[in-house]
Amino acid sequence: MLWGGRFESLPTEAMRRLNDSFAFDRRLYATDIEASIAYARALARIGLIACEELLQITAGLEQVRAEFDAGTFRAQPDDEDIHTAIERRLAELIGPLAGKLHTGRSRNDQVTTDLRLYLLDEMDALKPRLAELQLTLIEKAEASLDIIMPGYTHLQPAQPVLFSHWLMSYFWKFQRDQQRLAQIASRVAVLPLGAGALAGHPFGLDRRALAVELGFSAVAENSMDAVSDRDYAVEFLAWAALLQVHLSNLAEDLIVWASHEFGFVEIAEAYSSGSSLMPQKKNPDSLELIRGKTGRVIGHLTGLLITLKALPSTYNKDLQEDKEATFDVIDTLHLELPVITGVIRTLKVNAARMAEALDDALLATDLCDYLVRKGVPFRQSHYWVGQVVRRAAQQGVSLRELPLVEYQAVHPAFADDLTTVLDFQRSVAARDTEGGTAPSALRAQIERARELMIQTNSNH
Amino acid sequence: MLWGGRFESLPTEAMRRLNDSFAFDRRLYATDIEASIAYARALARIGLIACEELLQITAGLEQVRAEFDAGTFRAQPDDEDIHTAIERRLAELIGPLAGKLHTGRSRNDQVTTDLRLYLLDEMDALKPRLAELQLTLIEKAEASLDIIMPGYTHLQPAQPVLFSHWLMSYFWKFQRDQQRLAQIASRVAVLPLGAGALAGHPFGLDRRALAVELGFSAVAENSMDAVSDRDYAVEFLAWAALLQVHLSNLAEDLIVWASHEFGFVEIAEAYSSGSSLMPQKKNPDSLELIRGKTGRVIGHLTGLLITLKALPSTYNKDLQEDKEATFDVIDTLHLELPVITGVIRTLKVNAARMAEALDDALLATDLCDYLVRKGVPFRQSHYWVGQVVRRAAQQGVSLRELPLVEYQAVHPAFADDLTTVLDFQRSVAARDTEGGTAPSALRAQIERARELMIQTNSNH
Amino acid sequence: MLWGGRFESLPTEAMRRLNDSFAFDRRLYATDIEASIAYARALARIGLIACEELLQITAGLEQVRAEFDAGTFRAQPDDEDIHTAIERRLAELIGPLAGKLHTGRSRNDQVTTDLRLYLLDEMDALKPRLAELQLTLIEKAEASLDIIMPGYTHLQPAQPVLFSHWLMSYFWKFQRDQQRLAQIASRVAVLPLGAGALAGHPFGLDRRALAVELGFSAVAENSMDAVSDRDYAVEFLAWAALLQVHLSNLAEDLIVWASHEFGFVEIAEAYSSGSSLMPQKKNPDSLELIRGKTGRVIGHLTGLLITLKALPSTYNKDLQEDKEATFDVIDTLHLELPVITGVIRTLKVNAARMAEALDDALLATDLCDYLVRKGVPFRQSHYWVGQVVRRAAQQGVSLRELPLVEYQAVHPAFADDLTTVLDFQRSVAARDTEGGTAPSALRAQIERARELMIQTNSNH
Amino acid sequence: MLWGGRFESLPTEAMRRLNDSFAFDRRLYATDIEASIAYARALARIGLIACEELLQITAGLEQVRAEFDAGTFRAQPDDEDIHTAIERRLAELIGPLAGKLHTGRSRNDQVTTDLRLYLLDEMDALKPRLAELQLTLIEKAEASLDIIMPGYTHLQPAQPVLFSHWLMSYFWKFQRDQQRLAQIASRVAVLPLGAGALAGHPFGLDRRALAVELGFSAVAENSMDAVSDRDYAVEFLAWAALLQVHLSNLAEDLIVWASHEFGFVEIAEAYSSGSSLMPQKKNPDSLELIRGKTGRVIGHLTGLLITLKALPSTYNKDLQEDKEATFDVIDTLHLELPVITGVIRTLKVNAARMAEALDDALLATDLCDYLVRKGVPFRQSHYWVGQVVRRAAQQGVSLRELPLVEYQAVHPAFADDLTTVLDFQRSVAARDTEGGTAPSALRAQIERARELMIQTNSNH
Repeated sequence: MLWGGRFESLPTEAMRRLNDSFAFDRRLYATDIEASIAYARALARIGLIACEELLQITAGLEQVRAEFDAGTFRAQPDDEDIHTAIERRLAELIGPLAGKLHTGRSRNDQVTTDLRLYLLDEMDALKPRLAELQLTLIEKAEASLDIIMPGYTHLQPAQPVLFSHWLMSYFWKFQRDQQRLAQIASRVAVLPLGAGALAGHPFGLDRRALAVELGFSAVAENSMDAVSDRDYAVEFLAWAALLQVHLSNLAEDLIVWASHEFGFVEIAEAYSSGSSLMPQKKNPDSLELIRGKTGRVIGHLTGLLITLKALPSTYNKDLQEDKEATFDVIDTLHLELPVITGVIRTLKVNAARMAEALDDALLATDLCDYLVRKGVPFRQSHYWVGQVVRRAAQQGVSLRELPLVEYQAVHPAFADDLTTVLDFQRSVAARDTEGGTAPSALRAQIERARELMIQTNSNH
Repeated sequence: MLWGGRFESLPTEAMRRLNDSFAFDRRLYATDIEASIAYARALARIGLIACEELLQITAGLEQVRAEFDAGTFRAQPDDEDIHTAIERRLAELIGPLAGKLHTGRSRNDQVTTDLRLYLLDEMDALKPRLAELQLTLIEKAEASLDIIMPGYTHLQPAQPVLFSHWLMSYFWKFQRDQQRLAQIASRVAVLPLGAGALAGHPFGLDRRALAVELGFSAVAENSMDAVSDRDYAVEFLAWAALLQVHLSNLAEDLIVWASHEFGFVEIAEAYSSGSSLMPQKKNPDSLELIRGKTGRVIGHLTGLLITLKALPSTYNKDLQEDKEATFDVIDTLHLELPVITGVIRTLKVNAARMAEALDDALLATDLCDYLVRKGVPFRQSHYWVGQVVRRAAQQGVSLRELPLVEYQAVHPAFADDLTTVLDFQRSVAARDTEGGTAPSALRAQIERARELMIQTNSNH
Repeated sequence: MLWGGRFESLPTEAMRRLNDSFAFDRRLYATDIEASIAYARALARIGLIACEELLQITAGLEQVRAEFDAGTFRAQPDDEDIHTAIERRLAELIGPLAGKLHTGRSRNDQVTTDLRLYLLDEMDALKPRLAELQLTLIEKAEASLDIIMPGYTHLQPAQPVLFSHWLMSYFWKFQRDQQRLAQIASRVAVLPLGAGALAGHPFGLDRRALAVELGFSAVAENSMDAVSDRDYAVEFLAWAALLQVHLSNLAEDLIVWASHEFGFVEIAEAYSSGSSLMPQKKNPDSLELIRGKTGRVIGHLTGLLITLKALPSTYNKDLQEDKEATFDVIDTLHLELPVITGVIRTLKVNAARMAEALDDALLATDLCDYLVRKGVPFRQSHYWVGQVVRRAAQQGVSLRELPLVEYQAVHPAFADDLTTVLDFQRSVAARDTEGGTAPSALRAQIERARELMIQTNSNH
Repeated sequence: MLWGGRFESLPTEAMRRLNDSFAFDRRLYATDIEASIAYARALARIGLIACEELLQITAGLEQVRAEFDAGTFRAQPDDEDIHTAIERRLAELIGPLAGKLHTGRSRNDQVTTDLRLYLLDEMDALKPRLAELQLTLIEKAEASLDIIMPGYTHLQPAQPVLFSHWLMSYFWKFQRDQQRLAQIASRVAVLPLGAGALAGHPFGLDRRALAVELGFSAVAENSMDAVSDRDYAVEFLAWAALLQVHLSNLAEDLIVWASHEFGFVEIAEAYSSGSSLMPQKKNPDSLELIRGKTGRVIGHLTGLLITLKALPSTYNKDLQEDKEATFDVIDTLHLELPVITGVIRTLKVNAARMAEALDDALLATDLCDYLVRKGVPFRQSHYWVGQVVRRAAQQGVSLRELPLVEYQAVHPAFADDLTTVLDFQRSVAARDTEGGTAPSALRAQIERARELMIQTNSNH
């Protein structure tokens, strides 16, 4: 224990177990050591550590890291957290000199520095995984520009759309996630170290230099805020929650479309599971797991917000709860992103089934637009076409089968040129404004998406 | 894999990792084996397994359990979950006969049977831990009947109360938790086994006998409901969330009272931690961790509700997310309950500080009651005493120091007998209706509490 | 204001707006007056109010209630909550005597008494609405016993089931909700009144008699607990959240089945909406709204748990947040339940489409069971049938179309009697254990359900 | 109804009530009309509306707006939402021409355009309210630079800090909130209009011009995404949730410090309430309400995320649930921000009580630093000072009262110059690195804060 001088008795076993965070914060070992080495250098710069001492400390820390890397680090019962474990081991390796490393530093500023560094690394690792998913969507969209499918609202047939348009609709959701991730990073990359326990550093530490060395872009402006600030973890979890909602929507679409009755897509066997009882089954387990994990991620966000609610100023031990939530969300995304990317990449699209599902009713809005072009105000044309739809239903025929005379019985503006409207290709092509489902609009959309991908990746 | 006959390709590594639940559901091994042995017996009863086969299967399963118990069970990469792992190992041990065990059973009914059994065990294990906390509160309350402290509302001094009254206020919160736990158990103890994948059992299984053997009190009435029902897990998490809120309230009270400024209680060193930077510190880490974990538990409840939201009927793989949340909440409570019990048991109560903190203003309501007894309607007496309080504040004196003449200047009903009212002992003793803070009422309260404890424990 | 005597300055306008709860707690007027009348009687019983005074107070309160009932109650700017408003108006009507009503009572015990009474009334009102939904499910199930449909797991065809079996699967979910509601009621019906602000009643109030008069079944055992306890509101919200999840599942099933591609059911126009743009649309808005409101209800549960987290003992103003959440959930359920009941009652079931969707693959498990009966262990039979399924798929034929010789090429146990197995009626009928999908099992299920309905309703 | 042509029957009364959103979305009237006028102009630009028609439509819409402004708008039972209400009224005013306004527009793109416009306005209105709070903190901090108080971690005395340092710690939290708000705005200000129901606009609408006219900075790139995207509402709620957590922390600090036992601050009467029972009470209701409302805001965030989870593509009626959550959070913040600003502005700081509470133990870390300067490694110095603390406690004296000889008995490096260290002013002044609590560091902090305020406000 780092804090025993004043204590006469030891924690009970139950307290030790409750308090112990080593089981989960051990994954911070590399960042903790990285931050400690930089901190040792900073202490050396202000003369609190001699040059020779710095070399010893650095070498010692490198060895501890090597032990962790190699899996040979031996934890002790008193290693209540990763910081204690590393400092304990360092002292075994280099003696009392290890004790100089903590000069002016508290676990309060140390732990949040570690978590920020770790999170920055993981955000950097998640970014290309998300980008790969986006690229897969773009490629699939480019390769599918000739596939028309029924577009749905309320899960009811609405208007014909390009399958590529649907694919790209998810690209943009993920693009917003990328944009948000970049914005959050600027607030994660703020250095708390030098805040001490809460009051600041008493030895004139050069925090700006330390920030630069560790790759932070700014220093925390107020030490009391610095040790309590977990906004960055909340922001990350909120980011993940929204990304996870997008993933759940994508999963839901595909699960419904992969049903026997829709039959629009087939999930590759490599992303499906069978049944222990029913031999014919091929279940989209991958997508269901992704959809299901939305609860976990939103739950973690809610949980951390609750932990932070109404805490008094500065550091409280409640803050230890920030890590497991953050780690689990990181792990979850690393599990999911390659799978959903693989699902999209290997997705078998059944264009024929989509074409069969193109019901004439999907063209009803085109009929309205037809009347609009003939001068009928839209709201009235909507009403008249509603009458046409009903008439067709009563006669048990489709809109294309309904004779012109029936149309004209509803409204005299219907004429021979009606047939040009009752065409799925034409319907799609007509929606050629920016963002519309027309092939031309979609090509422009894909082009912009590709540009953004290049921009985002070179940005970095 | 249990389901490979129809499949031509294998899951990708990413899919395997996403899908794998063995890492966390392995803790179900004992219940899975218990349920399988009972199921094998049930199959034997309807002639699907011969007596000799039953012996072999049972012996095989016992051996698998022994391997898990001893830590010698060797998992294989294809062991995607605990059920697969056990069935695979059983087949290694007893050959194709192992394949008979799954007759009419699906992982869909198997997994929820396991989770219910496991949860029942854990609820049984949590119950006495909660009871121990309750008993500790009772004992502390009995031992502290002579301590008067300021009672607070809005964290502002309100009226004097017995410290024991405060202790018992938590007893009753936990007593409601006990009552709820017992009620939930009746819905956890419902047997899904025999539901198959969703459609029921085709071989005339005697589910009622199976339920009795496994200690369930009822059988699930509808197989489609049975494989999807996770109400019991939600109920358990909601139960835990409310218990956790109670724990957070208790922790908050003690954290505030253990502050230097209040100084009403001292947390034993065994449940405190020091600081890595500040040698004088003794921090109530135990209580802060408990308070902080409230986020985690509510987060898990929210998470599972989200996972269940808008799932289609029967089993969907999303349901795999039920386990980690449930397990983590169980573990959390097992960590916390012994600690909070220990904190209460070892709590040093500073009765002198409490006595010092008894400000005369706490008796203002007694002054109102005094006027009420003299016939002044309460609302008016409240106003006049407000004037008295203000007058005392203006003169910088306490209510006992304010001369009678000043009282009488406010209202003529004040008289010599006023002094009997301005007494903390009397104030407390006056609140002797059921549930009040008077020592007599508290003794009755404690007696009822003890009776309930006996009743609850013998019930079981 | 009821509390002004000590104050020298008034709240700012901003504070007044933040603090004001009259806008939403005014709906408690009837319960507040009911509780006040009972309290006045209780005060009279202990001699704090004369008989004549009691009559005046009661008459005055009745008149205030009449004003609210008639919509003629005139709120004043200082009416910060419903209690203040009523007391202020009572004083206008009967003078200073009104001030006696608050003797020994605090808003702390008053408000939670009101909320409990109100909630009990609303729970009583929700119970038959839920029962009506259950009855509708039973009636529909009885009337549909001849309809076989594909049963799904993972939204993939699994085994044939009765449509009635699906209907009844929701009956049981709602039956658990009924059971839970009844259990919660016993904890709502606990009287806090007499707890005062926190310390209890100083005039020997007979709380048990008061409880009986107000229809409570017990008195709160500890006054400090009584004024802070909002467990009952949390329990109600948790109850509603689970009910809401069930409603969302039911909605999801129907939305998917009402899709053009499934076409299993048609939602009545009376529960659908059209589109402002697309004249052909008929959208299941009712079901989508119900599904969507799941967020709201879980959000309120989460919200109240958060509000309660880490509050100090007894009453804190944070507790004012209990009401809007509770009221909104009550209102939401009152909106939803009649609609979902109507949707089920008017649901057009397309049995022909369900029959068409019965794919032979749904019988694969029956093939396994066939082999099991011939002595092949289940796991092996599962493998062999998997091979059969694959073989049929390769040849592009259904299981019934696949020649016997092909079956026998996979496994020699297949024989002429195979055709009896490949039958949907037989498959369903075979699952006749308790809870299974066989018509006989379903009739028993419905009978039990009807018995429970009678029992639950007469219970009350 | 805008969609009745195809329907034969009307919604039931229950459905009408469930579906009705006019009660809450009527507050969108001004933005709906603003967007409709711009849309009419855009239609005119592409020739779908004649110039004369445009004038009529615009005049009609202006009149509808005037009716709403004046409170004279008469809703009809069929006004299911604000869009329907306005279109219905417009048709009454200008006849069938009103029907042209909906050309190519769906409620799907209309409603999210309205909500975005409304939200942008409200974000603009919240920004200066938050800025006022920040400015109040700065001003208070500047005026309090001479007040030293005990700094706490774990609510235990830690090190002396400036009261201004604490005030500024909240400034920075709110500054991050400002930064986030600005970043979110860029994603709210994206125009969905022109997306139609889901497929895009068929008449070549110039969406970029429309975006400019309405003050949007970009157009939604994909129409299917555009009608389903509610990321902006989630982002706003997540922003509010974090702001709310900060407010809850600030409230908690002040509630604890306003307790009788701390006595560090006094909340002005204008932001306090009294008790209906206890005349002496002055409760910090304002702060408790703010703390309590954290549940509500996080609950709304959770709720909307839940509503969005697993929705199928494009518009589903579930999305109607976005509005009440968003509106309630906006209203809540408008209620809270002026109050918390007022509380800070009028806060009476009891510098004397803070000074009294400066216990010598707060200087223990300075003693460590003293030893460090004498060459003792920090960890060892921490241990020795722990011994000193214990020794002082055993002797019942403070660190300043403990004789030098006792210090030297613990460690020989202690010397005469020890007295210079045992000084609160010196301790504070020593922490003069960036972000530290020294007056010099704080002055720099305040200066930077002022610069940022100017920058942020001129930015806009």
